[in-house]
Amino acid sequence: MALLVQKFGGTSVGTIERIEAVADKVISYRDEGHDMVVVVSAMSGETNRLVELAKQVDAQARGRELDVLLTTGEQVTIALLAMALEKRGYPARSYTGAQAKITTDSAHNKARIKSIDHEKIADDLENGRIVVVAGFQGVDEFDNITTLGRGGSDTTGVALAAALKADECQIFTDVDGVYTTDPRVVPDARRLDTITFEEMLEMASLGSKVLQIRAVEFAQKYEVPLRVLSSFEAGDGTLITSEYGTDKTMEQALISGIAFNRDEAQLTINGVSDTPGVAYRILGPISDANIEVDMILQNVSADGTTDFTFTVHRNDFDTALGSLEQTAAQLKAREVSGNNKIVKISIVGVGMRSHAGIASRMFEILANEGINILMISTSEIKISVVVDEKYLELGVRALHEGFDLRTRS
Amino acid sequence: MALLVQKFGGTSVGTIERIEAVADKVISYRDEGHDMVVVVSAMSGETNRLVELAKQVDAQARGRELDVLLTTGEQVTIALLAMALEKRGYPARSYTGAQAKITTDSAHNKARIKSIDHEKIADDLENGRIVVVAGFQGVDEFDNITTLGRGGSDTTGVALAAALKADECQIFTDVDGVYTTDPRVVPDARRLDTITFEEMLEMASLGSKVLQIRAVEFAQKYEVPLRVLSSFEAGDGTLITSEYGTDKTMEQALISGIAFNRDEAQLTINGVSDTPGVAYRILGPISDANIEVDMILQNVSADGTTDFTFTVHRNDFDTALGSLEQTAAQLKAREVSGNNKIVKISIVGVGMRSHAGIASRMFEILANEGINILMISTSEIKISVVVDEKYLELGVRALHEGFDLRTRS
Repeated sequence: MALLVQKFGGTSVGTIERIEAVADKVISYRDEGHDMVVVVSAMSGETNRLVELAKQVDAQARGRELDVLLTTGEQVTIALLAMALEKRGYPARSYTGAQAKITTDSAHNKARIKSIDHEKIADDLENGRIVVVAGFQGVDEFDNITTLGRGGSDTTGVALAAALKADECQIFTDVDGVYTTDPRVVPDARRLDTITFEEMLEMASLGSKVLQIRAVEFAQKYEVPLRVLSSFEAGDGTLITSEYGTDKTMEQALISGIAFNRDEAQLTINGVSDTPGVAYRILGPISDANIEVDMILQNVSADGTTDFTFTVHRNDFDTALGSLEQTAAQLKAREVSGNNKIVKISIVGVGMRSHAGIASRMFEILANEGINILMISTSEIKISVVVDEKYLELGVRALHEGFDLRTRS
Repeated sequence: MALLVQKFGGTSVGTIERIEAVADKVISYRDEGHDMVVVVSAMSGETNRLVELAKQVDAQARGRELDVLLTTGEQVTIALLAMALEKRGYPARSYTGAQAKITTDSAHNKARIKSIDHEKIADDLENGRIVVVAGFQGVDEFDNITTLGRGGSDTTGVALAAALKADECQIFTDVDGVYTTDPRVVPDARRLDTITFEEMLEMASLGSKVLQIRAVEFAQKYEVPLRVLSSFEAGDGTLITSEYGTDKTMEQALISGIAFNRDEAQLTINGVSDTPGVAYRILGPISDANIEVDMILQNVSADGTTDFTFTVHRNDFDTALGSLEQTAAQLKAREVSGNNKIVKISIVGVGMRSHAGIASRMFEILANEGINILMISTSEIKISVVVDEKYLELGVRALHEGFDLRTRS
């Protein structure tokens, strides 16, 4: 018997029928003897409907009153789910963010959780009730209603699990777990039974949008075991946990997965005189234009000048290129070039920490396929390469095969 | 400069355009220098939509979770109205029932207000903000969301006005005030400038559905001047106030208005032996069947038996007649009869307290029109007669004319 926090997103509670299916699923866990806390989002479409209403009043609607408006979405879901549970004979009680005392800062529309006073919820659990909590919302110290911003319901689930010292926080989504890579690219990609928080963060930020990064960070910080499962299919999903939390790491594979990102564009400025502050003079104007920079590489040439390359989101390519050309003129750089037909492929795995030769194995696999590498960037648990976009599928499949990801058990 | 509490019902906030019109109206009062508190209902149709959702989950939906669900309706309106006010450059702040600390008992779906902690609202007013409060809802001492039941938004307005010691509570509706009688029956019925709480209660309970009885009682208890106005037309409406609160009563007319009720049915049991407890034996079974009894008359006959007559809602006539026939058999009564083609007409006015002869003047007016009176019932400020339904319009018009209601200034 465990204490489980389960989170169901908007699609999983999108209709009355689906809310009833969630009730049945929660009850199946309850019947196994578990204490259950359920976090739900607004029914799919509802948040957009409310935003549309707000925009009719004020196209720039935001701040305090937008939060008052939007939080009604989850409030509807918690009431309906609690009713569905009670209708089935299971005592249940719903909580808004304010009632659950999910205290946040006062940053409306993107608040951060500061604390949760879980006394009442713990009391309900002790009395055998299933607790249903509105995701995405909280209350600041002045009793103002706040929302956590995008992906906030995952964060609510993790925060509640941390506060209640739950055995597991289970995020139900429309996929059945985390895969070694995108199954649309590699049909025999394999669902991972486990993955570490660090790996998950690298996978998520590289484009595998299963979980919100913020929720994963939160779970890592408070050591909340996190599980991703399908709302619609049976299965154990993928457990995301601390690297040293289980002895499974003794047989840790070298790498866990292959992530990729199609939305990259690369910009290069060549022959810049290598003086202090040159990186700032190049990237300052880019940042001022609110463009996020991903990879940054700088090489020193033999002639005392430097070549500087960075990547941005493909949508920002034209703006970044214009900015860079202005900077090049000021810096008397030799040349500016750009390429928005590139992609990034990364291998991720905590196993590579203790194994030399992972990088050279990666480059060998790509070379064997005749794939030219344009940029390389490494971190402790990941290696990323930039290649021409036409090589994306070939590269991902070759790496998936070459690192033997299909057969790991 | 005054402190005004204004309440707008569902029709008045039924669309974004109407919410914006409410914002403009509130601002027109604010611009006159008044401190403004605005109470709003759910947008018309919204409560029904939510009830339908609940019924899909549980046809018997009620209790705690229904309140959590329904209160989202007003929460949407307060956010949109506050946005509309701010968009127009007027600082505003919305409050749910819980945020306004409208504390109720724990009777979900029909809670009663116990207290209001208005410190924050007073603080907002002092800082020049327009305060927007969700009607119909509150919170019990355990932080559970409650609703006040039917007509609850009027009650919220009055309770807030009482707590804040407002100068006036203004209820905006789809009529422009209280009339001497129904203008559909008497085209030259006149809007009353003022009416007393007592008169209003008699008018309301007799079928003039302008205000919820409960809100009027509340206003009377806490001596909150109450004004009924039109949301859609200009005008001063009708001020409902304490009888002795103004010197207007020095020229108080004899009667203020004529109310009527078309939904009456009459039942009579004749020749019951007049023993203690007989009234209970007759009405007990009626009450057990959840039938509400309105007028009750009992006469003693010369032969030591009694005749007992009462009226019920016309929908309950058949059930009541069946019950009464069983009782008659048990009591060995002489006869049972019923008539569901009757109506009740009442004249209402605090002026009749100090004037003899009002009743006889009423009967004279009706007699002059050849209208036969079937039952008579009197209270301190009203006289009701039951007549055949075919005399309704004739009777009301004759009384309106006979008591000179058209010309009172």
